[in-house]
Amino acid sequence: MVQYSDLEKAITTLVTEFHKASADNGSALKMEEFKGLLSSQLPTVAKTMGSDQGMGEILQKMGVSSGQDISFKDFWGLIQSIASNQHGLLSGEKVSKCNCILM
Amino acid sequence: MVQYSDLEKAITTLVTEFHKASADNGSALKMEEFKGLLSSQLPTVAKTMGSDQGMGEILQKMGVSSGQDISFKDFWGLIQSIASNQHGLLSGEKVSKCNCILM
Repeated sequence: MVQYSDLEKAITTLVTEFHKASADNGSALKMEEFKGLLSSQLPTVAKTMGSDQGMGEILQKMGVSSGQDISFKDFWGLIQSIASNQHGLLSGEKVSKCNCILM
Repeated sequence: MVQYSDLEKAITTLVTEFHKASADNGSALKMEEFKGLLSSQLPTVAKTMGSDQGMGEILQKMGVSSGQDISFKDFWGLIQSIASNQHGLLSGEKVSKCNCILM
């Protein structure tokens, strides 16, 4: 049996969590599916979007227009901003611009 | 105690594995550190770079010039291409352009 590394498992988790959130196994998420994913997997982000305004801001930062489905690429932009922020904090970089939708 | 979701843990793994690979806790990796990270955490990618030519191709796809340190952003580009490929396979998308440096 192949043993996967922690990094490989982490990548697979990101991909499968997004995929699992789609009811029809589609390549993109409907808005309600995306909200469900955030609530269960990114509660800190989900809190920000408690209001319609907060949700609108998150989508805007992700480059998603109102009514549009959320592609894996859109989702990945969100993950990237969370990861970059975490890395910046770890390595003591000054975060020049706050992406305050994050964990 | 805060319980983190699988997705949150996965993001943290990606960030900390990169960070751990830096001997001086710097924000970027020296080439040898990056090679060590690939060998231990992304063995399939590391196999591709068994040769100097293979390594050069990976770095070129990541947009890293020879002799340059590897930033988190560079590393993230590699993770993104692995994740996008996986997601494409899962959702049955035709992968129009093969990023064959991947898992």
